[in-house]
Amino acid sequence: MSGRAWRLSARSLLKITDVDGSQSGDLFAVAADDLTDGQSNGRTFDYGGTVGLTTGSILYSRRSRPLMKIIEDEVGRHDFLYAPCSQEMYEIQYGAATPQPNCYDNLTGALAAFAVSAATVTIAFNFFMNTEVGPDGKLRIHPPVSHAGQSMTLRAERDLVVAVTACPAGTCNGDGGGARPLDVEVIHTE
Amino acid sequence: MSGRAWRLSARSLLKITDVDGSQSGDLFAVAADDLTDGQSNGRTFDYGGTVGLTTGSILYSRRSRPLMKIIEDEVGRHDFLYAPCSQEMYEIQYGAATPQPNCYDNLTGALAAFAVSAATVTIAFNFFMNTEVGPDGKLRIHPPVSHAGQSMTLRAERDLVVAVTACPAGTCNGDGGGARPLDVEVIHTE
Repeated sequence: MSGRAWRLSARSLLKITDVDGSQSGDLFAVAADDLTDGQSNGRTFDYGGTVGLTTGSILYSRRSRPLMKIIEDEVGRHDFLYAPCSQEMYEIQYGAATPQPNCYDNLTGALAAFAVSAATVTIAFNFFMNTEVGPDGKLRIHPPVSHAGQSMTLRAERDLVVAVTACPAGTCNGDGGGARPLDVEVIHTE
Repeated sequence: MSGRAWRLSARSLLKITDVDGSQSGDLFAVAADDLTDGQSNGRTFDYGGTVGLTTGSILYSRRSRPLMKIIEDEVGRHDFLYAPCSQEMYEIQYGAATPQPNCYDNLTGALAAFAVSAATVTIAFNFFMNTEVGPDGKLRIHPPVSHAGQSMTLRAERDLVVAVTACPAGTCNGDGGGARPLDVEVIHTE
């Protein structure tokens, strides 16, 4: 349930596998040559023309630079609308009175070792998170459709720092959500 | 077509009027006590449960703090999915080879006078911009539904710096879009 971060060279691959199924996670990528140039849902929607990302979709940065491309996707349902769950989110949405494990702390904690400021993490790519936008704009979160062993692979489009965490939020996962592992394989090409 | 920014005390009002109709614009708000704590579409979707903002909706910050509340809305169609149009956007989407007036430069230019870093402007609230999310997730941009004289009013929920610009992008506006004025009235309460 903790976050990990890596330095990826351009063309390296990141393969994420849902080991037991129905477990979502959060990813944050930022350009290595400008650690304030993080991924942007708004820019990604601009150039992709859709809120639904899958094979072929590119995650763009705030400065409109390609960061990662989805080159394989066995799941097909992901979210790029929601911010990473955070302590404040658990307090506001669920009345939490004690510290909760959360994606924001996991991502920013892992990224800090690479000198990425927490202020840069304004949004996450919530892979395997299954969000529906109703015709009235209302948002509904359904359990992930990912089955045990299904994966997605993203390719670094430039030198990056990337962080990944499994999501502990019950609402974003199937029964027992947050307690399941994700397998993350980094395939360096240099 | 240029941007303006203001320091707003909590409870001050910002009233935006579409003078001639069918003209959208961009707004960016940031907390005065933390100039890295800018508005966040992800947090706003978290707590509002919808991508459709209107009267009663609160714009939340990256740190989950309320920044502005829409207290009056005669238009009812706005966008919080797209990043502000930028020079890079005109180059990538439309093949622009020369400098284009754009919301990002207008917002960041106006905010610079208040020491707000351009890196904080990761997303804009695109008021009067009429975006449709299809059942397949695909995005379509329609002309604004705002008529001449229609307005929306936002209240500062804390001390803020706020910038506003009219949007020059033809696709986001009706015929002649980008050439029309917006009237912005700041009603200070102290």
